[in-house]
Amino acid sequence: MRKKLVVLAILCSCLGVSLFAQESLESLGFSLDVIWLFIGAILVFIMQAGFALVETGLTRAKNATNITMKNVMDFCFGAIVYWALGWGLMYGKDALGGLIGTDQFFYSPMEVNIENGNFYKAWFFQVVFAATAATIVSGAMAERTQFKSYLIYTCFISAFIYPISGHWVWGGGWLANLGFHDFAGSTVVHSVGGWAALMGAIVLGPRIGKYVKGADGKITVKAFPGHNIPYAALGVLLLFFGWFGFNGASTGIATVGGGGIWSGLNIARVSVTTCLAASAGAVSALIFSWIWFKKPDASMTLNGLLAGLVGITAPCAVVSPGASIIIGLLAGVLVVFSVEFIDKVLKVDDPVGAVSVHCVCGIFGTLAVGIWGNAPEDGVLGLLHGGGFGQLGIQIVGALAVGAWAAIVSLLLFFIIKAVTGLRVSPKEEMVGLDLSEHKAEAYAGFQIFTSM
Amino acid sequence: MRKKLVVLAILCSCLGVSLFAQESLESLGFSLDVIWLFIGAILVFIMQAGFALVETGLTRAKNATNITMKNVMDFCFGAIVYWALGWGLMYGKDALGGLIGTDQFFYSPMEVNIENGNFYKAWFFQVVFAATAATIVSGAMAERTQFKSYLIYTCFISAFIYPISGHWVWGGGWLANLGFHDFAGSTVVHSVGGWAALMGAIVLGPRIGKYVKGADGKITVKAFPGHNIPYAALGVLLLFFGWFGFNGASTGIATVGGGGIWSGLNIARVSVTTCLAASAGAVSALIFSWIWFKKPDASMTLNGLLAGLVGITAPCAVVSPGASIIIGLLAGVLVVFSVEFIDKVLKVDDPVGAVSVHCVCGIFGTLAVGIWGNAPEDGVLGLLHGGGFGQLGIQIVGALAVGAWAAIVSLLLFFIIKAVTGLRVSPKEEMVGLDLSEHKAEAYAGFQIFTSM
Amino acid sequence: MRKKLVVLAILCSCLGVSLFAQESLESLGFSLDVIWLFIGAILVFIMQAGFALVETGLTRAKNATNITMKNVMDFCFGAIVYWALGWGLMYGKDALGGLIGTDQFFYSPMEVNIENGNFYKAWFFQVVFAATAATIVSGAMAERTQFKSYLIYTCFISAFIYPISGHWVWGGGWLANLGFHDFAGSTVVHSVGGWAALMGAIVLGPRIGKYVKGADGKITVKAFPGHNIPYAALGVLLLFFGWFGFNGASTGIATVGGGGIWSGLNIARVSVTTCLAASAGAVSALIFSWIWFKKPDASMTLNGLLAGLVGITAPCAVVSPGASIIIGLLAGVLVVFSVEFIDKVLKVDDPVGAVSVHCVCGIFGTLAVGIWGNAPEDGVLGLLHGGGFGQLGIQIVGALAVGAWAAIVSLLLFFIIKAVTGLRVSPKEEMVGLDLSEHKAEAYAGFQIFTSM
Repeated sequence: MRKKLVVLAILCSCLGVSLFAQESLESLGFSLDVIWLFIGAILVFIMQAGFALVETGLTRAKNATNITMKNVMDFCFGAIVYWALGWGLMYGKDALGGLIGTDQFFYSPMEVNIENGNFYKAWFFQVVFAATAATIVSGAMAERTQFKSYLIYTCFISAFIYPISGHWVWGGGWLANLGFHDFAGSTVVHSVGGWAALMGAIVLGPRIGKYVKGADGKITVKAFPGHNIPYAALGVLLLFFGWFGFNGASTGIATVGGGGIWSGLNIARVSVTTCLAASAGAVSALIFSWIWFKKPDASMTLNGLLAGLVGITAPCAVVSPGASIIIGLLAGVLVVFSVEFIDKVLKVDDPVGAVSVHCVCGIFGTLAVGIWGNAPEDGVLGLLHGGGFGQLGIQIVGALAVGAWAAIVSLLLFFIIKAVTGLRVSPKEEMVGLDLSEHKAEAYAGFQIFTSM
Repeated sequence: MRKKLVVLAILCSCLGVSLFAQESLESLGFSLDVIWLFIGAILVFIMQAGFALVETGLTRAKNATNITMKNVMDFCFGAIVYWALGWGLMYGKDALGGLIGTDQFFYSPMEVNIENGNFYKAWFFQVVFAATAATIVSGAMAERTQFKSYLIYTCFISAFIYPISGHWVWGGGWLANLGFHDFAGSTVVHSVGGWAALMGAIVLGPRIGKYVKGADGKITVKAFPGHNIPYAALGVLLLFFGWFGFNGASTGIATVGGGGIWSGLNIARVSVTTCLAASAGAVSALIFSWIWFKKPDASMTLNGLLAGLVGITAPCAVVSPGASIIIGLLAGVLVVFSVEFIDKVLKVDDPVGAVSVHCVCGIFGTLAVGIWGNAPEDGVLGLLHGGGFGQLGIQIVGALAVGAWAAIVSLLLFFIIKAVTGLRVSPKEEMVGLDLSEHKAEAYAGFQIFTSM
Repeated sequence: MRKKLVVLAILCSCLGVSLFAQESLESLGFSLDVIWLFIGAILVFIMQAGFALVETGLTRAKNATNITMKNVMDFCFGAIVYWALGWGLMYGKDALGGLIGTDQFFYSPMEVNIENGNFYKAWFFQVVFAATAATIVSGAMAERTQFKSYLIYTCFISAFIYPISGHWVWGGGWLANLGFHDFAGSTVVHSVGGWAALMGAIVLGPRIGKYVKGADGKITVKAFPGHNIPYAALGVLLLFFGWFGFNGASTGIATVGGGGIWSGLNIARVSVTTCLAASAGAVSALIFSWIWFKKPDASMTLNGLLAGLVGITAPCAVVSPGASIIIGLLAGVLVVFSVEFIDKVLKVDDPVGAVSVHCVCGIFGTLAVGIWGNAPEDGVLGLLHGGGFGQLGIQIVGALAVGAWAAIVSLLLFFIIKAVTGLRVSPKEEMVGLDLSEHKAEAYAGFQIFTSM
């Protein structure tokens, strides 16, 4: 036998197939997984451009440089602090019974090998998720937040807030042990960003002229139309595009692995449910806004598409195509209601509807797992598939716990920033626009623009 | 020997290589194919953004919200009806001797397994092709079509028109059996969209002020310049980008498979021919328009690039790099001629040149297979490679049959819509612009824009 | 043994695994590598859109059509001449002792097989690199270069200048033999483009009104603000996105291969270092410009991000995450200095800062290999890791040799073009804007724009 193997080896060498010796089935599978996470990561990365365009398009021209700069810089600061601190808190060695990770801070190994395999394989994919949570906030706080205060906030969410609750669910923490299921982050990413966005908008207060008290004491709610709807639409399409990686690559592997919902086999299902839920969200928001406001409203419809995406993010791997359409349709209606409720009833000024899309629909998507989930072999069985209220109860616990964490800590953070450096620009700076007052440059030099409200 | 295998198996288990047991060569290949179709699908998906930008950029500012909304919503409605009806008509069990598919409507399996493997593996890739055919039409019908009528039309093309002729060629239908070769869809996708676009533009009639009869009875043809050339250029680059997936992933697999043109090996060739044909199309359209109109015309050149892409779509897998350049050069000249002919001679108002790019060059690309095709081992041999008129004849039959189907059914459809709900906005609404009249919102709030023609 | 293999083969056939016969471990690895280069290539391709948007956004509205057309057409002409001549000069059979490649011109094989495997597998990935080098130049020469002269130049750089020095480093030429290390092209791509950009800007001279001599003989340096900062930001994000393919796929393979820095295992490291260096570049440029100019300058910060990317391009595979942050931070400061120095001291008019980003930081990144490089098993060991001045010396030689080649040949080329067809538009055409004077069409029809300086 040994002799024959030697003969075979010589034969291979003769054929010049040096590769044959290096690659095994196992290492090929590893390579495929590496590439899959790379693909997922770049898709989620480009969502930064999507967010930047949506937020720029739906706000006013005089703040366009400022909002794009905030979107670029929250990624750049976020990447560095997530490398320094966030990664370790989220995926380091668990401590305090599932509360926090405790090593791999400022991690900088030279070798790429088995021991640090997870760091190198997954860091790029993880940092773009952290950046997504962070960037959601800029939209809700648009057109009135100081640039430097925003940068301070964004360092904190990427270094501490997002990684710690992320550890609970994805880092092997206490919610993971409880059986909480959030496949790609309706709660871990979107609710966290959405809660922080809500707190930011509340602490900041509304833009000047947004809620005007008349002589009769009645408050008029003014709409500030966005300055570039094609930007917003392109941004939404880029987000849709990137979301296929956001949800799809959350399998973590492309190979079959142990099978089940975290297997590469499930990538195909995730693509289908993501596509259908987003489409259904846009359709229902369009129709609902058409009936309610007597016009096929562009920004509501675009937010409906995003609502469908956020709603399917948690359940995308455990529901059928049919269920994903139902989830999307409901999310699209929910977001229209929520935008109106937050604006007209709560009178919280969220210029792009970020809270409704990411927080409200993030919670909805998390609960959807407990209702439509149907992956019994992986322990996820929702109300409508005979699972009773068990999974749904766990989902509620997770949504509340993470929500409370994100809301309370970011509220504290914004109050501290407000006290120390100030959070909001002066009324004069706000009226002039943040481009000129903060960055000393127009976004659209040469164009005739009405910068009065 | 057996004993040694047992020892080996124990050894592997000892090494903790649980993966080793799960992954086989076969399953790894399956995973690679799944990922390849995913990559192809997201690339084709982002072409939606490309179409939206091209059409927005080449039309007027007062209709920018409307045209982007049409582009977003034709995907969203299209995805849902293609899931409900289109997929089954196109890839369901064949009936009526190759005319139509007949099952997998409203298909919603929970398990991802061998039986439904094709649905889950391919649906996302297929739906983005359907959306491409649908969205072509919005450009030709831009600036004067009612929003709701457009949505009705788009549901029909995605649910019925595209899937049925698609079944003939790609679903194992009668044209497939005849030997018709359309690798990535010059006919199946582009001609179908292009013919529907032509019918739509004819039934609608030209935009107000496009063809003005003077006192002398002579008709003056007016050009309405697009409002954002960088959008159009970015759109074309996104289409070029996505087209590599459109053509490349039409191999269907990344693995070697049975070899030949549908093998993963051919991906590399398809990338080269696609790149060269598109480049050649832009070059020839630039030079030709420069000579003819005495200026290096931007929109003609951009359409020339798209013409090269449409022209190489059918033959990309069966021609050499040299032939792809010839095909591209001819397509670039053809599209300039066609745009002028349709506008000045036929006096059909196609604001973005969609009919010339997709219908005319789609037919040209289909015939190119019969002329430059050189893949004898797969049964495709064109006129210039000793194949005589056999393949060319079959290509003509296919182009005519699919064209007749698409043209007649969409013509009927547009007449019915016109009769039932109306197809065109009122002259006043058209003059004001569809953004304000349909969506009650400007695309560029705050900008000083001349909305008169 | 033979008997047992026969039994195995029969067994496999019985299981119906027809694939099993076709696919071997080796061919699967080949397929994975093909796909990996495809992914890399499309990512680098979309950098064309990034460059187009950055250059359009940072220049004036009256030249927007012209600059986008130049960006589209340098790719299209470049692809064809790189196919005809460039590929052969760069990767053809070596001659003259490592100076030049000498075959595979106008290469058009019909078969995709082992002999031409490298051409088909790699051409698409290579052509997009060539296009990157070419397109860098358009920014530095923006707003005053004749369209036809730019096209002539771009054919030369893609056909001759870039491929010949590229052969020295990547085609097995003399610098490769010397041990020069440029993983993804700080020198091969960026410095070459950057040097040509510098020569172009010098030969052209500054834009009218850029440097105005007062009555007192003192020269006032005027800034022409860009007309669309969101375009520039979107462009930078697209470049960042594409750069992951630019650097990541420069491993050449996705499989493990022979291991070491050119192995697929290193893709994960390259992603991390690329992400961190770019982020650090933006952060340091932001902070530095904030301190220096008392404002968080948008275009400086965006250029800082690009500087980090260019700086990490050569060393991305041989440095640790920590070192990549240091490299990025330094590149971000360097680019701000360089932009000011070239503009205010040298008084060379580079409208978008292309020379500082690509030439200066390209040289810096090349030297960084000799300082922070730490891959002893692959023969790259920098100053800070005990390698002494050996590698650093080689890096200096490479940067100087390639720089001298690119600078001298492009300088000659621009002088010849200037003499033969003219390089610059007339003052009147420049004042009117190149869109109207060259292309006879505005970029933004209908918008009210101030086209005076």
